[in-house]
Amino acid sequence: MGYAPRGLAEKRYLMTPGPTPVPPQVLAAMALPIVHHRSPDFKPTYKRCLERLKEVYRTDGDVLLYTASGTAGLESVVANLTSPGDRVVVVSAGYFGERWAQIAETYGCDLDHIRYEWGEAPSADDLAARLAELGGASAVLVTQSETSTGVVADVRALAAAAKDAGSLVGVDAISSLGAIPCETDEWGLDSVVSGSQKALMSPPGLATVSVSAAAWEHGAKATAPRFYLDWERTRNAQEQLDAAFTPAVSIVIGLNIALKLILERGLDATFEEHVRLGRACREGVKAMGLELFSPDDDSSAVVTTVRVPDPVDGTQLLLDLRDRFGITLAPGQGPLKGKVFRIGHIGFFDVFDITTALAGIELSLAEAGADIERGVAVTRALETYEHQPA
Amino acid sequence: MGYAPRGLAEKRYLMTPGPTPVPPQVLAAMALPIVHHRSPDFKPTYKRCLERLKEVYRTDGDVLLYTASGTAGLESVVANLTSPGDRVVVVSAGYFGERWAQIAETYGCDLDHIRYEWGEAPSADDLAARLAELGGASAVLVTQSETSTGVVADVRALAAAAKDAGSLVGVDAISSLGAIPCETDEWGLDSVVSGSQKALMSPPGLATVSVSAAAWEHGAKATAPRFYLDWERTRNAQEQLDAAFTPAVSIVIGLNIALKLILERGLDATFEEHVRLGRACREGVKAMGLELFSPDDDSSAVVTTVRVPDPVDGTQLLLDLRDRFGITLAPGQGPLKGKVFRIGHIGFFDVFDITTALAGIELSLAEAGADIERGVAVTRALETYEHQPA
Repeated sequence: MGYAPRGLAEKRYLMTPGPTPVPPQVLAAMALPIVHHRSPDFKPTYKRCLERLKEVYRTDGDVLLYTASGTAGLESVVANLTSPGDRVVVVSAGYFGERWAQIAETYGCDLDHIRYEWGEAPSADDLAARLAELGGASAVLVTQSETSTGVVADVRALAAAAKDAGSLVGVDAISSLGAIPCETDEWGLDSVVSGSQKALMSPPGLATVSVSAAAWEHGAKATAPRFYLDWERTRNAQEQLDAAFTPAVSIVIGLNIALKLILERGLDATFEEHVRLGRACREGVKAMGLELFSPDDDSSAVVTTVRVPDPVDGTQLLLDLRDRFGITLAPGQGPLKGKVFRIGHIGFFDVFDITTALAGIELSLAEAGADIERGVAVTRALETYEHQPA
Repeated sequence: MGYAPRGLAEKRYLMTPGPTPVPPQVLAAMALPIVHHRSPDFKPTYKRCLERLKEVYRTDGDVLLYTASGTAGLESVVANLTSPGDRVVVVSAGYFGERWAQIAETYGCDLDHIRYEWGEAPSADDLAARLAELGGASAVLVTQSETSTGVVADVRALAAAAKDAGSLVGVDAISSLGAIPCETDEWGLDSVVSGSQKALMSPPGLATVSVSAAAWEHGAKATAPRFYLDWERTRNAQEQLDAAFTPAVSIVIGLNIALKLILERGLDATFEEHVRLGRACREGVKAMGLELFSPDDDSSAVVTTVRVPDPVDGTQLLLDLRDRFGITLAPGQGPLKGKVFRIGHIGFFDVFDITTALAGIELSLAEAGADIERGVAVTRALETYEHQPA
């Protein structure tokens, strides 16, 4: 079916921070015959899926569902909340933070960009100071998990600073929603964007966008043109259990099952599991003598970013892992290209995925001439996973 | 899995003009484990899919692939080809033609709307006259198959009139591409939009958009804001066999298989099959004494629209067919609500789907007190399909 090119290993280990592996129950549902989106074969599933999304978002407000990549969800925030000339502050520290800025510029916002080095963690104090200097801003756009570096920002603190200055808060939680706590209502987040293909362990194709009461109020005045991504059009349809446009029914059916699995385990238990997987990964990586690029603390629960050791070529390392072992890791992006590699550990992922990654990395690095400790990483990772680290 | 609500018939007959039934090979591929879109597990499939799309479009130009509903494809035409204030002529004769007009208005175009009654066929002479009156227009937007009425417009003639006046031509071919001839290059169509879930017999979730050389040239000057739907961003990625944003990999893999099936049978043979299915449907409908709303000629190869006979309630008829027999037809929309029903016959559809629809309709109508001829529709449909009509 055009799926397995010749010459590659048969089994696949997808360990990128998106797309992520999808549980077999979800995959099986993808193969069900197509049903009409306005039929009783679909509507109860759609209803449950929308309800479950609210639970995962921890919001009583609206969560809108779009057939699109996550980036379209980000664009919907700018298109529905801003008018040309509005002052918008973007806080960025990597590839995806930059995307917020690009979108805001595309829409003619008066962009104020607080730009950190890749790998730095944004500071709420910096944001508060800048907002005070500016005399406020219409909206502040932040990234919870900067997938390009592995750094998780303190969105609660950033949001509080924005709120204090009277700004609306848009959050890119594409790789973080369902992996780590994102308290939409409690933290006062006005619009949180996520995607089906990350911690929500579904195939790519759906973007989700929460909208607070304040965002609705502000959005009614926004003049940027938008049709497909217009929030109101989608809300009006969803209130009738309809979709404004034919949705990707297969993926909605899959997502509904994945959300059920997540909520059955419990959101807090799921967050704890991601913390433990992050710990196991970091301890294993360090045990073989590698240096972490992402922070060595429990905030690193989404993706672990590791420096490529001398004399290894980072690009070649990932090709070797992929072509010999079927292990797909994520490369460094932008200024980190070739300098780091990234191990995603969100969604349908367990500790033996971590040990598989570590075992493969260990072998490839050793063969490439890196001076690393052999035979300890897997054991250390498992021990860390089972017991709290010292 | 939340798929089959209790109390409905077990087997399903999806006979709407979208979503349409999907071949089992395509469904099976949807259940394959998720692969990374930048990996060799995906790229050869992606490449073939893009090549096959060009064959189906009959173009040597670009065909862009978006993870989105078809409407986003329509919006991309307006967003990439127009600037606020540009004169745009929309030719509409139903629900989907109206959508072109709504999008053009949303983007601040100087809209000139040639609006026909629902069920009428647009005339190229009317368009030519209006363009002459206006002294031209930046773009003309037309609908090939108006799914809400079953009327297929003569896009070749409309495009010729637009070209004569120096306008770019955007075509909504969402329900027609792959069902009936749409000669993108030969007819000089600047942008043709389609979707995965119609005649391309794949799950909903992908929109396709062709872009001519003239459209690229004009688009470079367009000032409407767009990020996700920006044509150039997607073309630049596709030229590297990349996607600008994580695509719905499962649906791309499915679409690639569906396109292979279509091209193996041959595009012309596929068009001929749709003509024969349309004939069979019309002759069967007429044989039981019903009146057609869509034209009684071979242009009606996408959807057959039938008037609901007295004393039957059109809404109740469709509920009866759905809940008792699992047959899903499409209702009338807008001014046709309750007055007509629509039988889609595109994509993975054969003559026994037609006879199933006819048999179900015959029984439901008779029980609802309609004065119809019994026992002739199925035979007439099959005979018509096998032999040319008299």
